[in-house]
Amino acid sequence: MDVIIRDAVRDDREPLRGMLVECGAFSDEEVRVALELLDAGFEGDYTTFVAAVDGIVRAYICVGQTPLTRATWHLYWLCTHPAAQRQGLARMLERHAGRYVADRGGERLVVETSGRPDYERPRQFYERAGYQPAGRIADYYKRGDDCVFYCRVLDRVRAS
Amino acid sequence: MDVIIRDAVRDDREPLRGMLVECGAFSDEEVRVALELLDAGFEGDYTTFVAAVDGIVRAYICVGQTPLTRATWHLYWLCTHPAAQRQGLARMLERHAGRYVADRGGERLVVETSGRPDYERPRQFYERAGYQPAGRIADYYKRGDDCVFYCRVLDRVRAS
Repeated sequence: MDVIIRDAVRDDREPLRGMLVECGAFSDEEVRVALELLDAGFEGDYTTFVAAVDGIVRAYICVGQTPLTRATWHLYWLCTHPAAQRQGLARMLERHAGRYVADRGGERLVVETSGRPDYERPRQFYERAGYQPAGRIADYYKRGDDCVFYCRVLDRVRAS
Repeated sequence: MDVIIRDAVRDDREPLRGMLVECGAFSDEEVRVALELLDAGFEGDYTTFVAAVDGIVRAYICVGQTPLTRATWHLYWLCTHPAAQRQGLARMLERHAGRYVADRGGERLVVETSGRPDYERPRQFYERAGYQPAGRIADYYKRGDDCVFYCRVLDRVRAS
């Protein structure tokens, strides 16, 4: 298995759209917003990395600097194709993005995710990756669908 | 004292800019972002109400629907001119905005504010207005400047 992590390019848009739909975790509106962030990333507002396995894009992550903060970034989106889960792609992307952010002076990554029972796997992923729970807003997304906030303080980048 | 709460109009921009600068609570970048939201509001993305005292704009509030949520709104900005504080203008605006949001099916208002000691008054304002603390992210804005999240569940609007 040959895995490459690289910047997203415009030709990735269609495979990423397919991945967002096929993974089944996102509503139509969420897919639309995810693609908006991807497109805005091509203009420089956000940064998207993809993981390609044997040349096929199988996972991606989108991060961006949090407005009005000095060194906080948000992890806006992280998605793995259902056919490529449990291979560590999300973890590789999260680590890659963390180093990218730290290289640019970022000190923490914030994630907002769902508190729903069927989101237990993503929450466990973040907790194992070093994210600390920072809060919860009841019924945030919709009734019975809380928002859970996580934050990971990044390793300081060594001066080179 | 004659107080009127009304929608912001383009002629309010300059008085509001002056208020943001004079109140001393906001950095240059925060003033810039506040004005961006105001301008976006004129295009329909956000809603801004002003409180005019004897014809002079003395406080304002900006709210907007939270993306990807069904019935959550954010209170993005709330500012009172230093010469008009402790007169209940912020409370009137917050209540007015809460009714506006509830009329449109909104069920909660979320506020992100600073955990700094010099922000104790705004935090007390929100707590007295019925906001519940929902979380805190350390060093979010900058080192020593945490983000504190609050949420107020709105009174249900009566069917009319």
